[in-house]
Amino acid sequence: MEDTCTDEFPLTMNSSEKEEAVCVFGTGDFGRSLGFKMRQCGYSVVFGSRNPQMSSLLPSGAEVLSYSEAAQKSDIIIVAIHREHYDFLTELTKVLKGKILVDVSNNLKVNQYPESNAEYLAQLLPGTHVVKAFNTISAWALQSGALDASRQVLVCGNDSKAKQRVINIVRTLGLTPLDQGSLMAAKEIENYPLQLFPMWRFPIYLSAALCIFLFFYCVIRDVIYPYVYGKKNETFRLAISIPNRVFPTVALILLALVYLPGVLAAILQLYRGTKYRRFPAWLDHWMLCRKQLGLVALGFAFLHVLYTLVIPIRYFVRWKLKNITLTQAMTNKDSSFSTSTAWRSDSYVALGILGFFLFLLLGITSLPSVSNTVNWREFRFVQSKLGYVTLILCTAHTLVYGGQRFLSPSSYRWYLPPAYVLALIIPCTLLVIKFVLIMPCIDKALTRIRQGWERKSALNRKTDI
Amino acid sequence: MEDTCTDEFPLTMNSSEKEEAVCVFGTGDFGRSLGFKMRQCGYSVVFGSRNPQMSSLLPSGAEVLSYSEAAQKSDIIIVAIHREHYDFLTELTKVLKGKILVDVSNNLKVNQYPESNAEYLAQLLPGTHVVKAFNTISAWALQSGALDASRQVLVCGNDSKAKQRVINIVRTLGLTPLDQGSLMAAKEIENYPLQLFPMWRFPIYLSAALCIFLFFYCVIRDVIYPYVYGKKNETFRLAISIPNRVFPTVALILLALVYLPGVLAAILQLYRGTKYRRFPAWLDHWMLCRKQLGLVALGFAFLHVLYTLVIPIRYFVRWKLKNITLTQAMTNKDSSFSTSTAWRSDSYVALGILGFFLFLLLGITSLPSVSNTVNWREFRFVQSKLGYVTLILCTAHTLVYGGQRFLSPSSYRWYLPPAYVLALIIPCTLLVIKFVLIMPCIDKALTRIRQGWERKSALNRKTDI
Amino acid sequence: MEDTCTDEFPLTMNSSEKEEAVCVFGTGDFGRSLGFKMRQCGYSVVFGSRNPQMSSLLPSGAEVLSYSEAAQKSDIIIVAIHREHYDFLTELTKVLKGKILVDVSNNLKVNQYPESNAEYLAQLLPGTHVVKAFNTISAWALQSGALDASRQVLVCGNDSKAKQRVINIVRTLGLTPLDQGSLMAAKEIENYPLQLFPMWRFPIYLSAALCIFLFFYCVIRDVIYPYVYGKKNETFRLAISIPNRVFPTVALILLALVYLPGVLAAILQLYRGTKYRRFPAWLDHWMLCRKQLGLVALGFAFLHVLYTLVIPIRYFVRWKLKNITLTQAMTNKDSSFSTSTAWRSDSYVALGILGFFLFLLLGITSLPSVSNTVNWREFRFVQSKLGYVTLILCTAHTLVYGGQRFLSPSSYRWYLPPAYVLALIIPCTLLVIKFVLIMPCIDKALTRIRQGWERKSALNRKTDI
Repeated sequence: MEDTCTDEFPLTMNSSEKEEAVCVFGTGDFGRSLGFKMRQCGYSVVFGSRNPQMSSLLPSGAEVLSYSEAAQKSDIIIVAIHREHYDFLTELTKVLKGKILVDVSNNLKVNQYPESNAEYLAQLLPGTHVVKAFNTISAWALQSGALDASRQVLVCGNDSKAKQRVINIVRTLGLTPLDQGSLMAAKEIENYPLQLFPMWRFPIYLSAALCIFLFFYCVIRDVIYPYVYGKKNETFRLAISIPNRVFPTVALILLALVYLPGVLAAILQLYRGTKYRRFPAWLDHWMLCRKQLGLVALGFAFLHVLYTLVIPIRYFVRWKLKNITLTQAMTNKDSSFSTSTAWRSDSYVALGILGFFLFLLLGITSLPSVSNTVNWREFRFVQSKLGYVTLILCTAHTLVYGGQRFLSPSSYRWYLPPAYVLALIIPCTLLVIKFVLIMPCIDKALTRIRQGWERKSALNRKTDI
Repeated sequence: MEDTCTDEFPLTMNSSEKEEAVCVFGTGDFGRSLGFKMRQCGYSVVFGSRNPQMSSLLPSGAEVLSYSEAAQKSDIIIVAIHREHYDFLTELTKVLKGKILVDVSNNLKVNQYPESNAEYLAQLLPGTHVVKAFNTISAWALQSGALDASRQVLVCGNDSKAKQRVINIVRTLGLTPLDQGSLMAAKEIENYPLQLFPMWRFPIYLSAALCIFLFFYCVIRDVIYPYVYGKKNETFRLAISIPNRVFPTVALILLALVYLPGVLAAILQLYRGTKYRRFPAWLDHWMLCRKQLGLVALGFAFLHVLYTLVIPIRYFVRWKLKNITLTQAMTNKDSSFSTSTAWRSDSYVALGILGFFLFLLLGITSLPSVSNTVNWREFRFVQSKLGYVTLILCTAHTLVYGGQRFLSPSSYRWYLPPAYVLALIIPCTLLVIKFVLIMPCIDKALTRIRQGWERKSALNRKTDI
Repeated sequence: MEDTCTDEFPLTMNSSEKEEAVCVFGTGDFGRSLGFKMRQCGYSVVFGSRNPQMSSLLPSGAEVLSYSEAAQKSDIIIVAIHREHYDFLTELTKVLKGKILVDVSNNLKVNQYPESNAEYLAQLLPGTHVVKAFNTISAWALQSGALDASRQVLVCGNDSKAKQRVINIVRTLGLTPLDQGSLMAAKEIENYPLQLFPMWRFPIYLSAALCIFLFFYCVIRDVIYPYVYGKKNETFRLAISIPNRVFPTVALILLALVYLPGVLAAILQLYRGTKYRRFPAWLDHWMLCRKQLGLVALGFAFLHVLYTLVIPIRYFVRWKLKNITLTQAMTNKDSSFSTSTAWRSDSYVALGILGFFLFLLLGITSLPSVSNTVNWREFRFVQSKLGYVTLILCTAHTLVYGGQRFLSPSSYRWYLPPAYVLALIIPCTLLVIKFVLIMPCIDKALTRIRQGWERKSALNRKTDI
């Protein structure tokens, strides 16, 4: 469903109803845009302004009055004024008594003021009902009707009737109200539009750092080393060959880092003998951004898949294959088929495909609309069981890829092991610890702790959930 | 959660409650289906009919009475009658006074009548509370319980208590009520089930036209030209080679067309010196279907990726590679490795992969459940910044693919340039204009206009948002 | 938006409000976790316990009293006690009169008791308002704040005011309340957390059985047969070649099984001459899990695509291509280009790509958030029209792949036809039946039946919907 009102001019109201009047304080860009939208949707709009006669550009059909005159026209007043100018509203205390004030303001920085703008407004004018709303919508979106991102209007307020009336307006404007509870939520709501992917920062910075490190690591091994020892120009490897070493390595490390905090938390709980003590802050934060870590890892895995599938199209690969064939043809040498090489080659590819497939399933399950349709048991089954199977498959893929080259000294250029060896350190360590943790004796102790048992507690709480 | 009631027979009600009675006017297919569902979910259902004794096929346990008798049994009357027969309801004005009438009707065409059916019903019977609901659900879905598409019931009405009671029924039937506000929304709700992807039409027609044109263009260049000059049968190219020229071209053009209206709008705003004048209708419509344009472009890009990845599997490609090797083997000629060709080949592939990856991210972000979890700032960051990076990568991919062939006369068969040259016209123009627009002096003017400044306006509105 | 309250200590409440008190019966893990969360979000929490002085580990700031004392402190009592111990609550009948009891209990098995725990509680204490809530949230999620899966709290209850108050608490805790209607829904809500993908079981078991059967079938044909007749070791085929025969076969069969029940239902309706008789239970169940069948089929199709795209990377394939070239080079034999082979090879690949592309579109449309944005007409267009086009493309892909080998006796090893022949049986049968059903005369009869017409019914219901 698109907007319930998209025409430029107000729709004729149902005859049984009178146009509801809404007052807007402030004739800035946002105030005008909101007034425009409300006019479209059949509201009668009155603007309040310091200089009513100087205000222009207002939606047709809207009145402009002084603040106190405008306030008398409606129960609902939208305060489209910057917080710094709220104090002048105290002059209007009498007129505003009992009215609903809708705070639509945003700040320039997260947590700019000690209390939220809406709570500040409520303190200034104790006799009013302050409702926070509309701050997540942009003026541009209101005017253009292109509301892809932010059809959602977060609403909060202490007076439930006032809140309900604002929610009704939101709905009539074709937007989606989300009741966020009491005015305590206002701070959160005011910070919301200022965020730029806060949960994604750590995963993205971490993966960027890993990428850069591994890229130079591989450049040393694959470009500089052959140049130093063979005067070979291998710079063309920078475009595909080296990224295709970096990306799978980053993907596997990040995937292991998704499951590492869970294992660390289990060890901490076993050590402390209780689950009722808070984890250190870094572990808490790490656990909360596991989903983002996993999705970044999936992105790198996806790039690795694409970079691998284009291998046979590359000029370099075609040239190499042709040259090998030519050399053999000229020397009349036939190459014999090695079943074990075929096994190794096919099985690491198959492991990789299955791992990627499960990884993709994990990613799809973390889409908000999908994860909302599964219950807690299903979610844990997918994210924990399926997640570990994915990790095992991907680690096995890397191990089989490495094959016997682990021990081959020629792989160690300047004592630097190949990238896939670096990729294996964390996943293998993690899988070994996890294997220890799921051994019956340890698992039993952990399960008891997670069900609320404490090492030194003698209480019997069998009857309670 | 599946339906709250899926059994065939009414569940035993909680002993503390009496069965709520609902009256259904009309014993047609939809009326019976809704009655059947309500019986299942524990309501007592009374049908109203012109010929009560002739009505059959009704759900077991449902009574059939005359309209006026049936109306007396319940406060809520579901009017499952075609709009053309509403006028007979005026005979029942007295009985229906104060009751809730649920209008479930749909029309055969969009905007068939000047006012919505529900508003018409409300005018006919002024003493009743008309609520629009259930029209988005099909009779078949109600009977079979397969409600994949349309668990959502759009509800609107002027009386909030009446609306709430209908919403409760919707919820008890295991459906999802969506409050759409006052009865003004009824027209929109009645048009909704008649739509068939209205926002997708322009992008799909446009891309179909582009596809057909480019297909014949490539057929002329790649099939007819070699046949005319070399008597070569290249018809097998119709299946993969030519689509793999058409699809990327269409994808790139459509992607550029996603960003073109934004640039045009900026030029228009700069020229007019204000943002408060409406854009021409065609530009408005174009801006509103950018998301769909982008997703269609993504579809073509995805096809291009698959068509490219299967290249080495194709018989033609394998045969050609084998023949080149054989020819070189027979002539004992060795081919030397060209680092610059390797660079060019690898870098256009790498650019393409990265462009496609970002394009896919853009697509995922436009999924409704994902775009609902990001705020306006994040959405603009992804769709604007990331979108332009995608466009630049894809344009660069095409430019490097073309390489030095631009100037080679052999590429111009019958004076027709290759398809990728056509693909580059719009994106390159767009990027040049965009580059001009983001130059500081112009960007500053544009930003001021977008913040509400007007060229001839002397008003100072610093205090207002 | 993340939680509205994430700090460890209660936020200072708005001065105009007093802290609302909530009572929690039971000091088990879940009770304590919920109390902890409510403390965080500014509620004053009182625990009721059998041994108030022995209870420990409770959130700081929470009081512990005897049950009857605790109950007097608040209108809302969260009953975090196992159902088996509910009967002791009858001793508190007087104190609990008129209070809101929130049943948070879960069972160990689906449908463990004849009535839901919440209904049982309501029967035990008739004077109270029982609301079911919070059972879908885990204690661990409440403590850690990691609420990915289950931000949703399903709430139901007979008293709407009581329900609303619980819904407000849910919202204040940063969770998403979903009103499920009256207490009748409690059974459903209690079963919900115990489910493990109930609708996915049949598709997954079926596809697993098909996979195992086809795997051994292909092993006999492709590994054992060449070993018996040629002493060739082809075991390496187990990793990729054989899965890449099994997966497309399973995918095509499952895709056909998605559309088979619809065709069977049509035949049944034509035979019975009415749509008002229920289908047999197996057909009903089959129809309800079509979406899951289709998505499993899509998974197998995706694996088939990946397994196919890696073909040219495989050692075996590279070795074979090299050897063919070498043999031809040594015998100085040139191979001529066959246009018909090129046509066949390119067209089955192109058909496969287009089929997979449409299949993916079908899959994306079945994402909950996407299917919620389309109406019934659009959903049917995609799932029915587009679905059949997908089936036709995939069947054609398999037919062209088979090509002329159908009749070649060398394909029939030990009289076993190749796997793709098995794959074609159900889709081809289905398409033939469907073709018969859409012939005008039959289609007309079916449409009339689906619009509510019955063979022996003489009633005229033109006026009713």
